[in-house]
Amino acid sequence: EEVSKLLALKAQLSSEDAPPTKFVLKTAKGTRDYNPQQMTIRNNVLQKIITVFKRHGAECIDTPVFELKDVLTGKYGEDSKLIYDLKDQGGEILSLRYDLTVPLARYLAMNKINTLKRYHIAKVYRRDNPAMTRGRYREFYQCDFDIAGQYDLMVPDAECLKVVTEILDALDIGKYVLKVNHRRLLDGMFEACGVPNDKFRSTCSTVDKLDKSPWEEVRTEMINEKGVAPEAADRIGEYVRLNGGIELVDKLMQDEKLSKSKAAIEGLEGIKLLLHYCDLLGIKDKILFDLSLARGLDYYTGVIYEAVLTHPIKIGNEDQTIGSIAGGGRYDNLVGMFDSKNKQVPCVGVSIGVERVFSVLEARLAAGDISVRTSDVHVYVASAQKNFLDERMRICAELWNAGIETEQSYKKNPKMLNQLQHCEENGIPLAVILGESELKRGIVKIRNITTRQEEEVPRENLVQELKSRIELLDLKDVNGPLPK
Amino acid sequence: EEVSKLLALKAQLSSEDAPPTKFVLKTAKGTRDYNPQQMTIRNNVLQKIITVFKRHGAECIDTPVFELKDVLTGKYGEDSKLIYDLKDQGGEILSLRYDLTVPLARYLAMNKINTLKRYHIAKVYRRDNPAMTRGRYREFYQCDFDIAGQYDLMVPDAECLKVVTEILDALDIGKYVLKVNHRRLLDGMFEACGVPNDKFRSTCSTVDKLDKSPWEEVRTEMINEKGVAPEAADRIGEYVRLNGGIELVDKLMQDEKLSKSKAAIEGLEGIKLLLHYCDLLGIKDKILFDLSLARGLDYYTGVIYEAVLTHPIKIGNEDQTIGSIAGGGRYDNLVGMFDSKNKQVPCVGVSIGVERVFSVLEARLAAGDISVRTSDVHVYVASAQKNFLDERMRICAELWNAGIETEQSYKKNPKMLNQLQHCEENGIPLAVILGESELKRGIVKIRNITTRQEEEVPRENLVQELKSRIELLDLKDVNGPLPK
Repeated sequence: EEVSKLLALKAQLSSEDAPPTKFVLKTAKGTRDYNPQQMTIRNNVLQKIITVFKRHGAECIDTPVFELKDVLTGKYGEDSKLIYDLKDQGGEILSLRYDLTVPLARYLAMNKINTLKRYHIAKVYRRDNPAMTRGRYREFYQCDFDIAGQYDLMVPDAECLKVVTEILDALDIGKYVLKVNHRRLLDGMFEACGVPNDKFRSTCSTVDKLDKSPWEEVRTEMINEKGVAPEAADRIGEYVRLNGGIELVDKLMQDEKLSKSKAAIEGLEGIKLLLHYCDLLGIKDKILFDLSLARGLDYYTGVIYEAVLTHPIKIGNEDQTIGSIAGGGRYDNLVGMFDSKNKQVPCVGVSIGVERVFSVLEARLAAGDISVRTSDVHVYVASAQKNFLDERMRICAELWNAGIETEQSYKKNPKMLNQLQHCEENGIPLAVILGESELKRGIVKIRNITTRQEEEVPRENLVQELKSRIELLDLKDVNGPLPK
Repeated sequence: EEVSKLLALKAQLSSEDAPPTKFVLKTAKGTRDYNPQQMTIRNNVLQKIITVFKRHGAECIDTPVFELKDVLTGKYGEDSKLIYDLKDQGGEILSLRYDLTVPLARYLAMNKINTLKRYHIAKVYRRDNPAMTRGRYREFYQCDFDIAGQYDLMVPDAECLKVVTEILDALDIGKYVLKVNHRRLLDGMFEACGVPNDKFRSTCSTVDKLDKSPWEEVRTEMINEKGVAPEAADRIGEYVRLNGGIELVDKLMQDEKLSKSKAAIEGLEGIKLLLHYCDLLGIKDKILFDLSLARGLDYYTGVIYEAVLTHPIKIGNEDQTIGSIAGGGRYDNLVGMFDSKNKQVPCVGVSIGVERVFSVLEARLAAGDISVRTSDVHVYVASAQKNFLDERMRICAELWNAGIETEQSYKKNPKMLNQLQHCEENGIPLAVILGESELKRGIVKIRNITTRQEEEVPRENLVQELKSRIELLDLKDVNGPLPK
């Protein structure tokens, strides 16, 4: 608390002309507000994703934003230092959730649930060094789809890949490839290359850097930092440059070294079956079996996935490379870590990198490539004359009661120009214009804001007249981001 | 960290038959997971509320779950002790948000926004003593609608009340009354009763308890704890038993004591105008001007509201009293507290007590009064015969690609009975039944799960045949809570 007071004091001093009770106004480091445009983009993206999740029968769950610290302990390896802890205020020791996978495992174990197909969209927290320009924050959304249950090999695993393709197709964010690999094959590969058992994990997390660093650097790290023998590293280097389809699987099954490793064969057979199912699901051409894929997380036990955009995205006049846009895999042992009898519930899932999608769309919005409408208002009730607030209110109530999205000025006597400007600025397509002489004749005017045409309609038919015009509007115009 | 270790140790000791690495599995005190049924109820309720917010042109924003602690300091009076603080891990001193109003004010001031009509639905955090059976948690949703901007008196204020009526009507949760009062009238009343200026606030928060305690108790607290003179308390007692409509406003304007108070007259004129607008908006019969309404929050400056359910709600065979279901008011000075030049942005808003709504619906679900469908699946792809997984996969992919919500078993050779049972248990209306002899004839069967009737259709027309059947389904059946 002392620190807090000092910081407040410091903040006061640094904001020069502020009165003494003021401080620098900001959101916490690595976080941001979402303004209406950003929320529209976000809700639109999430709605498309949820539609796909539901198409596959997923149910929705949510968990608290914080967990008992013990729940998170020992699940994230060296990344545990990035966990946000709550202050001990007497009571339980709590931390903010770091992802949605560990809370799912805790949920399944706690409620003794053996099968669940669920999605979970929520914010998670990591005290990482934020790179906010590239869409990396300390508070960010995760968007997860997981299938828990004891099922036949690779059947739910293949459906996860199908889900990712449907989502990326729906978001229409560019061409992509779904890389797949298998944890058992990685283990078998390290074994076959002569890496000692206890170095599998750390070698694996080094291989994981291949998407960002060239092989030479990865090799150096392997040898100098992880203590892998140079010959072993070179053998690994031979394998991790391989990628392909079913023919590569068949070739590797004949590979002199790999064919002797039970783990490698198990992994290869898994990949083979997965590729077969992907063929049946019609997504074979989007899948790439890639031996360099080695997601770092400790808890994966089987297939691992990563979706990567293969082409840069055009933002304004610039091309931007996005890279990874979704990832996941199978983790059969995580739930058991929470069960007192170590009962396992096998799980497989994917996480959609929605923050990257948000960033791309926000950048495109800023570049003027797309436009966004942040409210759904169809009708504005206006008047050119004074003392029409009462009548405007009556009409607004009538339209609201009829379910029509309606706004009016909160001023008693607004100027006509300001009212029409509000409509134009906010993309409100229709205005009801009230005037004394028309009302005496039982008439109101409906103005089309775009065409500026006005039509007189009987006051008593107003709701019907508006509804029929709203139906004719291009409904795409009122939905989230769209081509300008 | 020491404490954390000790607690972990304690937890281990207390879970008897667990191996040493295990601990008691639970969510943090006062929090809960939302399971798929609860999420369906929640999403359904929120969707109805959002529809109303959007009908009134509200935009959506979101803010980080934590704020710099200084942002929250001094906004909640004695309740500040309930704020969750984050541990100082080097860097900024942070606290979890306590409501959505202060973050809104910070957002407006920080971005120098003068007008905004926004809704915000998010979780907030209070280290209160949870009464979870009555729907009170330490982590809970707030659902706020606010109008910021310098406008004419009571115009946005009246719209907030209209919004509440539309929401409560849409939720169809029982009869209600919207109580209104005015902070200036309360001040004027205390002044007229002889309460010293510096005791207005504390006297006000005592009056606030009238909804739960009888007058005698409130009177005692006023005199003994707040130091109000007995005669003053008795005069207050006369006023706070008054409630009514426009005629009460007129009567009080003539009241000997109140008419001498500038504040009281200002409040009464405000209420009179508000009631007039409510009349125009067609909600007069739902409004009750009630002098006992005295919401505790420090930041209100004008009108205050509270929506109360007037009848107990039937849950199973029992009646349950719910009470307050929404509340709000005008707070014209909060944004200025964040602005270095003290620039004010007047605001008025309401918060819907969605947790109470969730609790009622969850209780009705538990009592069997309503049922809930947690997934949207329309079609299940099944087979009675072995080795049909490949064909099932092909058909699932075809249906998913056609946008049809589809599931299948993740087992290679599931039993027919289990497949049909899954459909019945999950309310899946249609099954596609594959058989070898039918497929050879280019035929598949569509089974209506409810009627158990099966029809043969050409395999190539499957998508069309399913779509036309899905269109005929009662769509209400697939949407959230519904009468059983």
